[in-house]
Amino acid sequence: MKCAVCGRKAAVEVRRQGKAFCPEHYLEWFEGQVKRAIRRHRMLAPGERVLVAVSGGKDSIALWEVLHRFGYETAGLHIQLGIGDYSERALEVTRRFAEERGLPLYVVDLKEAYRLAIPELAELTRRRACSVCGLTKRYVMNRVAVEEGFDAVATGHNLDDEASVLLGNVLHWQTDALVRQGPVLPAKEKLAKRIKPLYLLTEREILAYTLLRRLPYQHEECPFAQGAKSLLYKDALNRLEAAMPGTKQTFLEQYLKKIEPVLAEGLAAEEVELTACERCGYPTTGKVCAFCRTWDRALSFAKKKGKLAGEVRFEPAPKPLFFAPSAS
Amino acid sequence: MKCAVCGRKAAVEVRRQGKAFCPEHYLEWFEGQVKRAIRRHRMLAPGERVLVAVSGGKDSIALWEVLHRFGYETAGLHIQLGIGDYSERALEVTRRFAEERGLPLYVVDLKEAYRLAIPELAELTRRRACSVCGLTKRYVMNRVAVEEGFDAVATGHNLDDEASVLLGNVLHWQTDALVRQGPVLPAKEKLAKRIKPLYLLTEREILAYTLLRRLPYQHEECPFAQGAKSLLYKDALNRLEAAMPGTKQTFLEQYLKKIEPVLAEGLAAEEVELTACERCGYPTTGKVCAFCRTWDRALSFAKKKGKLAGEVRFEPAPKPLFFAPSAS
Repeated sequence: MKCAVCGRKAAVEVRRQGKAFCPEHYLEWFEGQVKRAIRRHRMLAPGERVLVAVSGGKDSIALWEVLHRFGYETAGLHIQLGIGDYSERALEVTRRFAEERGLPLYVVDLKEAYRLAIPELAELTRRRACSVCGLTKRYVMNRVAVEEGFDAVATGHNLDDEASVLLGNVLHWQTDALVRQGPVLPAKEKLAKRIKPLYLLTEREILAYTLLRRLPYQHEECPFAQGAKSLLYKDALNRLEAAMPGTKQTFLEQYLKKIEPVLAEGLAAEEVELTACERCGYPTTGKVCAFCRTWDRALSFAKKKGKLAGEVRFEPAPKPLFFAPSAS
Repeated sequence: MKCAVCGRKAAVEVRRQGKAFCPEHYLEWFEGQVKRAIRRHRMLAPGERVLVAVSGGKDSIALWEVLHRFGYETAGLHIQLGIGDYSERALEVTRRFAEERGLPLYVVDLKEAYRLAIPELAELTRRRACSVCGLTKRYVMNRVAVEEGFDAVATGHNLDDEASVLLGNVLHWQTDALVRQGPVLPAKEKLAKRIKPLYLLTEREILAYTLLRRLPYQHEECPFAQGAKSLLYKDALNRLEAAMPGTKQTFLEQYLKKIEPVLAEGLAAEEVELTACERCGYPTTGKVCAFCRTWDRALSFAKKKGKLAGEVRFEPAPKPLFFAPSAS
């Protein structure tokens, strides 16, 4: 195949668009797609400060690279989950990336901030690791963004992620989740704007970008991902995509364009009010937010079972460590 | 496993409901499900005459059996598609079933009524066989029902069919099709009511019913079904169902309950007016209906290519043959 732009030998095929590109024009195409998404959904205005949630995987590393290249003022936020060597290597690669580019990085170590790592939290609460991990990450991201004065939190969610979440929400018709499916969730009181600039790019396309840009990234999957429902949905969509290229993109884009507005309007009665959590002051739909409830209970449990020494008191503030860019 | 009703050895498991039944109570459960669907959606009032579309496959045979057992006044309609031996055997099994029960049967032979069988129609129009076959069957069913004074046309669509159609419509967000997804399509001028009493029962459950009732049915799949998109969707749903029993049912039921009303309301502006086809007088959204356009064009083509001898004139009336029940 030949590059759709210059006619030279192509290196990457984008099958869903029936195109292929040489390395140089692939990078141009990829960054153009991100730029278009940011512009079309008004994700960021010039001069806005962005906190990039960086796990160290290909998606978040590629996202940080692109936003940095576009000239946005970015800082990274890495949450140390405490999942053994996997998390050690994730932190390592994230720090390396930040240092190489001279970018600021916040690190929240869950074990230091809250005294438990994800595997212990899952065990104590008897919930799936992915569920308590997601809950914790969303809380920490938002709180660091608000307290450190960022205008937005950017996450590396890609087309495969977004289409598989949509499929799960559609299979069970989760109305509350369906109306929060967009690539931009606007800011509210003590709730930073959340944006997903890579939402129209596939895992494969992002991988090609990180390889061509020679970005460091963590190759391993999280050991808890195995057996997750999201993998079932991704597998189903991958099979459909193979038979009908473009399926994922149509599924997500047409939903956001044609259906989400109708559902948001028609289901408006179901929308819930946000109030301040009695414990931490951050937004919640109940009295005490899910983050405070989950962690408070887990710590009480850990104390009762004698798993933690000394005084055990839950304190919601994430206390990030800040790594300022080196002067280089 | 034991029968959920009597505790005897179970013969059929209904995994999505976490139950199993002995043969006797399975039949009772199955027919109860159909009765509930008919009642819940007010599909049929007492005394209404039902035309059952009978291909001869397990679904339509089971449907006719159940409606007959419930005491409805039924007649069968079999459409001879002219797909070689497959269609011959389909007619044979349908006639046998009707004769054994002393039930009236209408037969429309496409080749006799319109001079072309489905394979030729597909070839001449260069369309997929499933597409022109579906279009033709819907037209003939409705026209026979209206002209012979039936209150409703019942089809054997099952949960797998309905869920896979919904998945296809959702993946492409076909808004017009999405608001016509229900198990009852109400009657309009020259449009018979259409009902799907088996819409909440799976293929597997219907197969178990036909086997336990020892009903004759055609085992073969239509040779044109291979490679159809509906099979892709069914395969995807089967994999999800295996991992999460109940997925198909939730997907379809919750859609009909929570989402369809909202979409029907919100997308109302897109609804189209029906007018009488200039050619046949039956409802259409254009000037000439898709059935008349398709067949008229195919016959003109066939004539031009010298494929049909004698005078070739398209005449939309399906001219059914009527097999009255024998006096037995």
